[in-house]
Amino acid sequence: MKNEVGEYCGLCGVIGAGESISALVAEGLFAQQHRGQEASGIATLDGTGEILLQKKNGLVSELMLDFPEEMRSEDILAGIGHVRYGTFGGSSVINAQPILVRMADIPVAIAHNGTISNAGVIRRSLQRKGHIFQTNTDTEIVLHLMSRELEDTDYNIEKCLQLAISKLEGAFCLLLLVPQGMYVIRDSMGFRPLSLGKIAGGGWIVASETIAFPVTDAEYVREIVPGEMLFFPINGDKSCCEPVSSISGRELQLFPESGKRHAHCIFEHVYFARPGSYVFGDRVYEVRIEMGRQLAREFPADCDMVMPVPDSGMFAAMGFARELGLPLDMGFTRNHYVGRTFIDPGHATRAAMVMRKLQPIPEAIKGKKVCVVEDSIVRGTTSKARIKALREAGALEVHMRISCPPHRHACYFGIDFPEETSLIANKYSVDEIRDILNLDSLGYMSVDGMLSCISAHPPENYCTACFTGDYPVVPPVKESNRRGRQI
Amino acid sequence: MKNEVGEYCGLCGVIGAGESISALVAEGLFAQQHRGQEASGIATLDGTGEILLQKKNGLVSELMLDFPEEMRSEDILAGIGHVRYGTFGGSSVINAQPILVRMADIPVAIAHNGTISNAGVIRRSLQRKGHIFQTNTDTEIVLHLMSRELEDTDYNIEKCLQLAISKLEGAFCLLLLVPQGMYVIRDSMGFRPLSLGKIAGGGWIVASETIAFPVTDAEYVREIVPGEMLFFPINGDKSCCEPVSSISGRELQLFPESGKRHAHCIFEHVYFARPGSYVFGDRVYEVRIEMGRQLAREFPADCDMVMPVPDSGMFAAMGFARELGLPLDMGFTRNHYVGRTFIDPGHATRAAMVMRKLQPIPEAIKGKKVCVVEDSIVRGTTSKARIKALREAGALEVHMRISCPPHRHACYFGIDFPEETSLIANKYSVDEIRDILNLDSLGYMSVDGMLSCISAHPPENYCTACFTGDYPVVPPVKESNRRGRQI
Amino acid sequence: MKNEVGEYCGLCGVIGAGESISALVAEGLFAQQHRGQEASGIATLDGTGEILLQKKNGLVSELMLDFPEEMRSEDILAGIGHVRYGTFGGSSVINAQPILVRMADIPVAIAHNGTISNAGVIRRSLQRKGHIFQTNTDTEIVLHLMSRELEDTDYNIEKCLQLAISKLEGAFCLLLLVPQGMYVIRDSMGFRPLSLGKIAGGGWIVASETIAFPVTDAEYVREIVPGEMLFFPINGDKSCCEPVSSISGRELQLFPESGKRHAHCIFEHVYFARPGSYVFGDRVYEVRIEMGRQLAREFPADCDMVMPVPDSGMFAAMGFARELGLPLDMGFTRNHYVGRTFIDPGHATRAAMVMRKLQPIPEAIKGKKVCVVEDSIVRGTTSKARIKALREAGALEVHMRISCPPHRHACYFGIDFPEETSLIANKYSVDEIRDILNLDSLGYMSVDGMLSCISAHPPENYCTACFTGDYPVVPPVKESNRRGRQI
Amino acid sequence: MKNEVGEYCGLCGVIGAGESISALVAEGLFAQQHRGQEASGIATLDGTGEILLQKKNGLVSELMLDFPEEMRSEDILAGIGHVRYGTFGGSSVINAQPILVRMADIPVAIAHNGTISNAGVIRRSLQRKGHIFQTNTDTEIVLHLMSRELEDTDYNIEKCLQLAISKLEGAFCLLLLVPQGMYVIRDSMGFRPLSLGKIAGGGWIVASETIAFPVTDAEYVREIVPGEMLFFPINGDKSCCEPVSSISGRELQLFPESGKRHAHCIFEHVYFARPGSYVFGDRVYEVRIEMGRQLAREFPADCDMVMPVPDSGMFAAMGFARELGLPLDMGFTRNHYVGRTFIDPGHATRAAMVMRKLQPIPEAIKGKKVCVVEDSIVRGTTSKARIKALREAGALEVHMRISCPPHRHACYFGIDFPEETSLIANKYSVDEIRDILNLDSLGYMSVDGMLSCISAHPPENYCTACFTGDYPVVPPVKESNRRGRQI
Repeated sequence: MKNEVGEYCGLCGVIGAGESISALVAEGLFAQQHRGQEASGIATLDGTGEILLQKKNGLVSELMLDFPEEMRSEDILAGIGHVRYGTFGGSSVINAQPILVRMADIPVAIAHNGTISNAGVIRRSLQRKGHIFQTNTDTEIVLHLMSRELEDTDYNIEKCLQLAISKLEGAFCLLLLVPQGMYVIRDSMGFRPLSLGKIAGGGWIVASETIAFPVTDAEYVREIVPGEMLFFPINGDKSCCEPVSSISGRELQLFPESGKRHAHCIFEHVYFARPGSYVFGDRVYEVRIEMGRQLAREFPADCDMVMPVPDSGMFAAMGFARELGLPLDMGFTRNHYVGRTFIDPGHATRAAMVMRKLQPIPEAIKGKKVCVVEDSIVRGTTSKARIKALREAGALEVHMRISCPPHRHACYFGIDFPEETSLIANKYSVDEIRDILNLDSLGYMSVDGMLSCISAHPPENYCTACFTGDYPVVPPVKESNRRGRQI
Repeated sequence: MKNEVGEYCGLCGVIGAGESISALVAEGLFAQQHRGQEASGIATLDGTGEILLQKKNGLVSELMLDFPEEMRSEDILAGIGHVRYGTFGGSSVINAQPILVRMADIPVAIAHNGTISNAGVIRRSLQRKGHIFQTNTDTEIVLHLMSRELEDTDYNIEKCLQLAISKLEGAFCLLLLVPQGMYVIRDSMGFRPLSLGKIAGGGWIVASETIAFPVTDAEYVREIVPGEMLFFPINGDKSCCEPVSSISGRELQLFPESGKRHAHCIFEHVYFARPGSYVFGDRVYEVRIEMGRQLAREFPADCDMVMPVPDSGMFAAMGFARELGLPLDMGFTRNHYVGRTFIDPGHATRAAMVMRKLQPIPEAIKGKKVCVVEDSIVRGTTSKARIKALREAGALEVHMRISCPPHRHACYFGIDFPEETSLIANKYSVDEIRDILNLDSLGYMSVDGMLSCISAHPPENYCTACFTGDYPVVPPVKESNRRGRQI
Repeated sequence: MKNEVGEYCGLCGVIGAGESISALVAEGLFAQQHRGQEASGIATLDGTGEILLQKKNGLVSELMLDFPEEMRSEDILAGIGHVRYGTFGGSSVINAQPILVRMADIPVAIAHNGTISNAGVIRRSLQRKGHIFQTNTDTEIVLHLMSRELEDTDYNIEKCLQLAISKLEGAFCLLLLVPQGMYVIRDSMGFRPLSLGKIAGGGWIVASETIAFPVTDAEYVREIVPGEMLFFPINGDKSCCEPVSSISGRELQLFPESGKRHAHCIFEHVYFARPGSYVFGDRVYEVRIEMGRQLAREFPADCDMVMPVPDSGMFAAMGFARELGLPLDMGFTRNHYVGRTFIDPGHATRAAMVMRKLQPIPEAIKGKKVCVVEDSIVRGTTSKARIKALREAGALEVHMRISCPPHRHACYFGIDFPEETSLIANKYSVDEIRDILNLDSLGYMSVDGMLSCISAHPPENYCTACFTGDYPVVPPVKESNRRGRQI
Repeated sequence: MKNEVGEYCGLCGVIGAGESISALVAEGLFAQQHRGQEASGIATLDGTGEILLQKKNGLVSELMLDFPEEMRSEDILAGIGHVRYGTFGGSSVINAQPILVRMADIPVAIAHNGTISNAGVIRRSLQRKGHIFQTNTDTEIVLHLMSRELEDTDYNIEKCLQLAISKLEGAFCLLLLVPQGMYVIRDSMGFRPLSLGKIAGGGWIVASETIAFPVTDAEYVREIVPGEMLFFPINGDKSCCEPVSSISGRELQLFPESGKRHAHCIFEHVYFARPGSYVFGDRVYEVRIEMGRQLAREFPADCDMVMPVPDSGMFAAMGFARELGLPLDMGFTRNHYVGRTFIDPGHATRAAMVMRKLQPIPEAIKGKKVCVVEDSIVRGTTSKARIKALREAGALEVHMRISCPPHRHACYFGIDFPEETSLIANKYSVDEIRDILNLDSLGYMSVDGMLSCISAHPPENYCTACFTGDYPVVPPVKESNRRGRQI
């Protein structure tokens, strides 16, 4: 078991939206399924103040297969949901989110996107005071920190929450469901995206990506501001949740932001977010095409055609091809049914391992100088195999362009990259990588070029630590495994 | 959800018994399945100090169906198991036992039989200090109490355990598995049985009932003494766990017993334990036959034959018939496949409701004066229906003899009786009950008569509170539901 | 896979009994669960002429757990059910019953108790004509024989059924559900029991054992006569199924019985049927007690007490003890939760293997000369281990009395005995068996003595072939495995 | 239940390919999962002549999750697999394929792609002769026809198969597994594709689409010729299956092709096959781009950009844009996790229903004249909603081009179109459809234009009946539901 696991995830919370709250949360999660396929969960609040939870290892569609009737009920007033990304095996559903506990007798559910970087320190401190943790998530510490304040605050959940959050460092977007309503919190540096939408028929939605809004009939209102905490109270009249303040609830400016830099994750634009989403105030579609254009300006290619690695390289490839006036072609055909690997490597052919997901179309490639546009190279093993497959399919030359700089450093704020030493660019120069991958040429975008494609916030408000090593906050020290300590 | 649920259960722990620890724990539980059919669980300790847990709503046989291979491994050094009784619906497997947590990073598993009567008070006190509970069991408070002492004791688990236990009141037999070995604890009043056995091939077994010993090739050694705490350390050599002291481990006399009365549950002998077990030093078989004889001396019956309510009334009926020189007959045939009720009452016939489990055999009954011997009458509804069925099957007269006094009071020490007001003898006199049940005569055994059948301990060492209301410790006050408290 | 498997089973059919047909069938099966624990199934006929089927490997209670709502509907007009006995592993649910097929487009469901002794011959003959079988059951041939007659009889199902049955030999009680109603058939020799009951609120029930009647509020009417075929038509008015003739349907005397001997299975009385049932016109309770008395007359024992092997030896032991004026005691305590063996023999202790189900109670046995009464000895291995356990528990002498003659021959008519060569009495004399089992004395009842306990039919109407080898019809020749035949 | 269901499916058979036969079949199916997502199945033949079957409702990845160890064994010599398309609800796994039966005692497994158009006539004829069918598939009749010939052919499976196939009409690609090896059959008109590949390490693969070859390390050899039947015998040496004749087995020219026209399904090229496959000797990638070009020549569009409906319209859109020199853009973002619909329509918003799978990217569309390229319009409802969504996203004009002619007629040869009367082009002219869909212009490709994009076979060898109504064989007459026929 890994301790203090932080993860790339998707959040969705809905309140005051009539009789189909669970369906709306599910739709919102479903649109964000790309942010996490390992586990899905929804917690709902009903009119009696009770919170119910359903979570499962698997996709939202699997979660909904046996979704409890009582959680679909018209009596549901609010709901929060979570999809979780995770590549390590054997993950217990106990680490899935939302997490539901009772503090004293008050039910509280929480869902989290990001990584609380001082979670390990806090956890051990709480354990020394006698706290027993149910999960390995960093999320759970928020609940324990809250719980410790219950008595001193005279059971005021909001004060407990404020006190708890004031102790956290790192990246965290949080949704909490309590008997009184829903809390929405974003850390003061704004690592991960979180946006507010207004549902056409009434009610509010909060989601990591705005791609969740059209499918829930919601209009984009604004980002949750870094350092903001919003409260959406439930009303007796379930069909309409009137927020406390004019826009979106009782606003609480949690953190004095004076002098604090923001640190939006630029990799959301490069890779993670869906092209239909607003993220950090910019449209991913536009940013990604512009990244392709900028890449072409920095590293043009002498080739017959440009082909994306589908689907992630699609829009950068379009921008790249347009900027250079080159034809775009789909040289790979993608198998949409690839999911969990189901045949043990010992039994599968080498061909299957490489081509199960993406298979070259020889007619598109044969006798051509091709330029492959991809969003990133992590370990390099997959890229190497694909380039080999392209050459076997008859490519005369294979060039590659990457729509971000080389990944050289670990992320401590929510992206599940492998260890630094596994990153190919951590060990090798671009020229060496080109040779290792057997490419005719290789070009990575510059940091400045990448940031020039953004328009909503100034470049210094983005975190580029995975490229530069310049971490916006001190990353946590890795700690040795403490199990087996002498008693 | 019920808070602070205490339950009738069965325990089994095995250590130092070679390569089949899990199988032995399973056999021991299996022999005690009558003590709990709702949930079953086993936790095992392996040579790396890791504890694994498997639990399930269902019988031990169901638990073992998908028992993990790694928990069957030869590397397993010790194991504790639990079967849980519970009649209330919707019980989550989360409340099943053993409960496994990590305190700081130390794995601890616990299994409990009994009811900690001050659990509610402790739980709320801990909640006010920020503790978050995972279950509704009273058992979990032991772990939280231990966890709070970790730092002060410099992570000495044994001291933590002693400190935790010193705060408990009520009935508790506890088994704990920690990386260092197995702890066995019995409360100072000895409410519930717990015995120690020596396994023929080496190693030790602890079980609620000694019926678990023959099937595990173990010999009865002695009772765990009320107030005793034993520790069984694991050895590097898994085939032989040499206990610290001469008999059975490093003995710790936890509680100063001076002046404290014992309070063994007499209902174990009347009903719960299996006739092949030693309980509180007496053989259930002998006690139960003697109870039948004593009942006959107190309330003989003028009848043609004596019939037990199978199987619980069997031995008392034998004693009753022998004392009076009357023939014993099986007037009811029992369906061994009756388990959870599977047909909703609205659809089942009245006949099915009464006779699904026990069905009169008309040939045995017709034209006869029958005397039914039963161990107890709780609500009276089932008895009433059965007596009606006997009359419909042609009985001339129906007499009933109960091998204990009338149940008039709740049990706070581990027996899951209904509320006092549901007990027929709480509201009605014996004559009234006789009339309500439409009996020709009804006789309950006297308290003194019942206690006269015991020989291992003096009568004052038994708890008879469910008959007399004379509770050996002050029972907990019922508390209102605290959910929904304003914040 | 075994071909042509015949099995010991239980049947229940209900028609015209209002709104809870499925619940009544389930109750009827449930009361007969002892006749088969491997698989359970129910087929229902609704008002549109459609037949639905639910079957499962497992008990009736497991079947009912996810019983389809539409099969519980008030619209159900008739239902047939089956419980199946089987000890061989890996049995596919495809061989469970009822079997439902469409002949042309007519749905037909069938349930069968017994063994069609010429099934192999018929099956191969049909296969040569192109028939493809879905199951390995002998039951399925009835459907194929029927199907072949569809065209010639102008799709008259009843004529098809008559023609099919006229080709069958051996033991068969059959229930069929067709869009027009329910057919009930018993072979002309009456090997297996089948009885008719009238449900108090209206409607009919047919069951292998009458123990199914009280729980369904039904009164015993009579046996289905050997060679009889009854038809129960459905009516438009679902609450009342008026039979065609005065008693129980349109009666069809299928088989001219002139000169044909009957062959009721005596082992139903010895072992299989429940003591509360009528079987072949006699009450099992009375027959079994009388068998004990007769056994005592043939082989009295000089002992201190008589103990049954519970539960099957209970009533014979009572008769035996009464006849000799000896005390009856329960020297074994039975674990009611023994089901499928769950611990692989390699891991279980020898003690567990012997005592998991029945465990000696030393107090009952120690220092005594005991006489164990059992219904039969098959292989002898279990008996040998139990006798050893009794001696280890302190018995001075162990005597054994068996309430039927030695089993020396296979059964081809529905009892799943092992191969003849595995039967201990097939290879050894009674004296040798006594020595092998380490008994002080052993007595088996005589064939004539056994038959003298019956009163409803003359002795020559019973099949005693498993004792005598005198088969009422020629048993089928065993055939070699035909798989892998050259093409 | 639908009778005689024919379906769009994918086949894969592997023989003589060493130790990972099942893995290769699974990879081959997996690459063809787009041909069927409802059910998946694999049957394997081992060295003892036994055939084992595993099938499941679900994807190949789900099938492999609990794939039996014995079917993964190195002892497996050959395997056939099937993926099945089906949109109607409640489909039983019994209708999944392969179908495995025993004929007499010979195991035979069959998998089928296509629709046997005279299946209904044959089925009813067999039913009148007494055959009982296990499934509702047309495939099963092949087995029954074979089974009827067993005796006359002296159990020669190959002769049985030839005789059976000679009675079939319509579209059928068949794989059969028998103890002697694997049979491969394609109907004489060649409706559906079926190709042969040679596996690098030895052995043969047969698949509906050649996309299965690269992932199994196989090279394309040739199409299975219409009317061809191939036999691949198993050898004792499992690592190498030497075919009987030089190329690919013992060839049998089953059907005299003289004068028979071929009827390859043109819709495979338009929509169904993956762009990386050879189908009917042509590369789908090239045909589909050429279709886009031809469409542009027939119906150019005056617009700012061309956008495909992903993914099926991708390649036609590329050809269309290239021919006209227009920019290609991705105006829709696709959710890759859309599977079975999981929220009941009553609860989902209208927005969710339309946009769950494809969501417009406003930045790509706003203020533009867009031309959407799609492969077909069936009912028109989805297209209408998507066009509305494009207009709401700000499109100035919406034009649509379809890369095939209007679908006006049912398919009786394997494509699961809805009833003719549900096809929008069956009821409306192109102008009317344009108005119904609220398009600025609409263009469908001509039949001749479509066929001009093909090069491997002459145009008259393609079936275009769904566009023209010119069926290559007489389609089956629809028959009334025959259930409930009087008996």
